[in-house]
Amino acid sequence: MKVRRSDRLIDMTRYLLERPHTLVPLTFFSKRYESAKSSISEDLAIVRRTFAARQTGILETVPGAAGGVRYLPIIGREEAERFIDLMAARLSETDRLLPGGYVYLSDLLGTPDVLRQIGRLIATQYLDQQIDAVMTVATKGIPIAQSVSQYLNVPFVIVRRDSKITEGSTVSVNYVSASSARIEKMELSKRSLAAGSGVLIVDDFMKGGGTVNGMRSLISEFDAHLVGISVFAEGNFDGDRMVSDYTSLVRVDTVDTKANTLHAVAGNYLTKNQAALAGLAQ
Amino acid sequence: MKVRRSDRLIDMTRYLLERPHTLVPLTFFSKRYESAKSSISEDLAIVRRTFAARQTGILETVPGAAGGVRYLPIIGREEAERFIDLMAARLSETDRLLPGGYVYLSDLLGTPDVLRQIGRLIATQYLDQQIDAVMTVATKGIPIAQSVSQYLNVPFVIVRRDSKITEGSTVSVNYVSASSARIEKMELSKRSLAAGSGVLIVDDFMKGGGTVNGMRSLISEFDAHLVGISVFAEGNFDGDRMVSDYTSLVRVDTVDTKANTLHAVAGNYLTKNQAALAGLAQ
Repeated sequence: MKVRRSDRLIDMTRYLLERPHTLVPLTFFSKRYESAKSSISEDLAIVRRTFAARQTGILETVPGAAGGVRYLPIIGREEAERFIDLMAARLSETDRLLPGGYVYLSDLLGTPDVLRQIGRLIATQYLDQQIDAVMTVATKGIPIAQSVSQYLNVPFVIVRRDSKITEGSTVSVNYVSASSARIEKMELSKRSLAAGSGVLIVDDFMKGGGTVNGMRSLISEFDAHLVGISVFAEGNFDGDRMVSDYTSLVRVDTVDTKANTLHAVAGNYLTKNQAALAGLAQ
Repeated sequence: MKVRRSDRLIDMTRYLLERPHTLVPLTFFSKRYESAKSSISEDLAIVRRTFAARQTGILETVPGAAGGVRYLPIIGREEAERFIDLMAARLSETDRLLPGGYVYLSDLLGTPDVLRQIGRLIATQYLDQQIDAVMTVATKGIPIAQSVSQYLNVPFVIVRRDSKITEGSTVSVNYVSASSARIEKMELSKRSLAAGSGVLIVDDFMKGGGTVNGMRSLISEFDAHLVGISVFAEGNFDGDRMVSDYTSLVRVDTVDTKANTLHAVAGNYLTKNQAALAGLAQ
């Protein structure tokens, strides 16, 4: 039965939103709605216009016989700024300060809304790069990895500090924790990452960068390559950071454990992605 | 500027899909699109019809001055069956069998598509119940908790077996691991769960139910209450299981470590939810 345009637009929107970065042939929609290809093309032009106007994402057209459309989720600059400002304000809340100058983040990293926006932000940054897997370390990086992986539509892999029988054979590396100067070990299931993969590292919080650096070694061990490093928050670090090329959404710039106050500001995300976000703005 | 119906339908669909279980007042849409409430009502009727026809979800209308619409994601029975069959087939793959009879699941639990469907399935089951938080234990339960939490639009909390300074004060319980008969400890950040909360427990794999039982004790310690228990996969267990009222999507029914084979079938999810899924089918 032929499907009306209004119904097609609704179902098409849902279908595309659930499959970011996936090429959907026009013939698929044409069959699904028993409608002519020309009608489907018109539908897609409307979806493209609305997605652009609302800064939901880019609907890319791939021409030719093997072509179709592909939905690339993005976040607009204004929405990105608003979210980052909100997060900086939330991270400045006094009751987040924990003994030792640590910051409590588990509430934010367990909230679907917050995770959705973090995922959109980080995915937007790597829009034009070939990413085959998102990597993080257990435990608190996982929600971020999962959200980014959803928007990029690629798998995520979890590096662990503790050995687990449910992972099968693993590859492990030793790394130096920059904060404590101790040597630690992390490992990743051998079958979880293919050689040649482009890997995006994400984590919740970076201080000295030791953990991120450990993941970088793991990537080499797997004959894969690093595409980028993105963290939700970075802290101040006295001394040489082991990682220099990364983006952070938020930066905790002052922690005063005596006065029991902390203060967070925007990280380097907006500055580093100025050109990219501006390019999306039309 | 007044927005055309086609554009409204697309943006409305996206807006609702991103906010499951959230009441959106008609006046919100009417303002956003500078359109009369009567037009918005007509739009929503079309969205409701398409969502129902494609078994995307239920668009519930809440009447009155404080009313609006609410999108409740569901999965249809056929799609649920297809997904469960696929997972049973995937879990029967010989190379998942690990020493000790464990089953490798990390690839599936790191794939956005798979997680999306697991989340939809479990969320559908608890459609009519008041859930305030989803609870799981680190590490492999986290992706499931996150996906369910997204579809129910409530926070998720992560119970840990290892103490972490970044969690602040915690409440801990001891529990007996049914498989190993050892006494272990698990803990949850004190501020992460409010008294009186309705809690849904989810996990990746259940054998004797010791871990799930530990989480149940934790819920009591927080003066919260258990609403349900859902696991992705259950294994066979010789002896008394500590948990009887749960649902599983898949059941690993034979593990032969000598012949190096394993076999998985559908869990009790479909049987337990027969009435609910049938009710959604019209």
